[in-house]
Amino acid sequence: MNQQQLFEQIQKKRSFLCVGLDTDIQKIPQHLKDTSDPIFSFNKEIIDSTAEFSVAYKPNLAFYESLGSKGMESLEKTVMYVKSKYPEIFVIADAKRGDIGNTSNLYARAFFDHQDFDAVTVAPYMGEDSVKPFMTYLDKWVILLALTSNKGAYDFQFIEDKESGDKLFETVLKTSQNWGTTENLMYVVGATKAEKLKEIREIVPDHFLLVPGVGAQGGSLQEVAKNGMNSKCGLLVNSSRGIIYASSEADFAEKAGAAAEEVQKEMEVLLQEAGLI
Amino acid sequence: MNQQQLFEQIQKKRSFLCVGLDTDIQKIPQHLKDTSDPIFSFNKEIIDSTAEFSVAYKPNLAFYESLGSKGMESLEKTVMYVKSKYPEIFVIADAKRGDIGNTSNLYARAFFDHQDFDAVTVAPYMGEDSVKPFMTYLDKWVILLALTSNKGAYDFQFIEDKESGDKLFETVLKTSQNWGTTENLMYVVGATKAEKLKEIREIVPDHFLLVPGVGAQGGSLQEVAKNGMNSKCGLLVNSSRGIIYASSEADFAEKAGAAAEEVQKEMEVLLQEAGLI
Repeated sequence: MNQQQLFEQIQKKRSFLCVGLDTDIQKIPQHLKDTSDPIFSFNKEIIDSTAEFSVAYKPNLAFYESLGSKGMESLEKTVMYVKSKYPEIFVIADAKRGDIGNTSNLYARAFFDHQDFDAVTVAPYMGEDSVKPFMTYLDKWVILLALTSNKGAYDFQFIEDKESGDKLFETVLKTSQNWGTTENLMYVVGATKAEKLKEIREIVPDHFLLVPGVGAQGGSLQEVAKNGMNSKCGLLVNSSRGIIYASSEADFAEKAGAAAEEVQKEMEVLLQEAGLI
Repeated sequence: MNQQQLFEQIQKKRSFLCVGLDTDIQKIPQHLKDTSDPIFSFNKEIIDSTAEFSVAYKPNLAFYESLGSKGMESLEKTVMYVKSKYPEIFVIADAKRGDIGNTSNLYARAFFDHQDFDAVTVAPYMGEDSVKPFMTYLDKWVILLALTSNKGAYDFQFIEDKESGDKLFETVLKTSQNWGTTENLMYVVGATKAEKLKEIREIVPDHFLLVPGVGAQGGSLQEVAKNGMNSKCGLLVNSSRGIIYASSEADFAEKAGAAAEEVQKEMEVLLQEAGLI
């Protein structure tokens, strides 16, 4: 999917919601646990009830890997399900990968050839040759970690460069722009650091940003939109727990849909205020 | 496995060799491709022929993930095989993971509960809460990326901190020492930067270092040992391609064994010179 197609989806659905499929076997409703693949059963119902209000899904790989090869099967089925039933939806592998060149190549193959993800999150520590292999696929995306939503972000991401004065996350934003374009590179910026979005927009005015941390982690959607929106929206705001665990009972899918719709309605207002729809 | 047990293995085998099980389906001998699980068949023979000369195995997850859930099955079987037949060998998941706290927890569960790895490589960008969940398992290890062997290492790892003057990899070494101990924390330091090992040893005199990049990537074993060895050896030096692809014919396992033995003999001399055996 290219940038324009993504923006058109945002306009059509009046939403820039990404639903985080962080499906925890311990948190899914009891009645699904007896099915042959409880994780996939859960995801399928969540997807059907939220697809109308969402432009992206983002399974975090850790939730699937923690269940071994069975979990990876559930993930593969989930991606195939979205891609066959809702091909217009952008699917992100939240994997935070990154390795030496020839190895990153294999990860790219895993996510883009073996599976049909549209994007994968990548950690920047190992530099250019660890990131670029993910950018060689047409209409596929790298989403590079810049400023993350967790407490540990303060350990290294704010270190100031002796020469330029830039903080590490700013250096990551500036340096990595030479590796890709607004058509294959997005950035992760945590909603818990929404006040930084203004400065970040000065460095990367046109790139899409994936913003986790709204909801359970405490970030504000209004502030994210105010500081981070650009002329093509430029935002995918992720919510996981607030939507997929809106209820732990038999009505979980219905409640997830209602929670997603509530966020979508908020987003619709923000898109209207920005004159984008 | 604790540090003393690892050192005892090194003394007993007169080797600090880690064999990288970077098994590429495209590179394994033709006659194995007809078996039901070619990757596992290859690994099993490599393990049997090199176990005598090695103290560690390090499968890089990318090679397995690129084959989907089938690849993950091959990986699970490989780890089980080592642990049942050669329980004294240290097994490293070269995964370069790292995510917000509750998610890193799940990765730790994947590698340490669901599978029986002794260690996992972790990327430092997201800071303390992304690393610590891997340290809560007794006798299990985090191997944190400090200075990597690839060209991209120069993009961010050498950025100097305005306040302390430390390079980013030095800050990672210093800061992370507060997160763990010499009993649950090692560091990745690329052999291609062996001249840096002396400075690194001043910061982390007692931690084990995992050193990739000897052989195909051009690092020198002599120099790594000279600059990096401590009183408990403190080194696991990895070789992948030079050993597992020593031959692409039917004699691949035999040739891999011979290549591993050759490295072991060199290591034996280095351990003797250091007075450790």
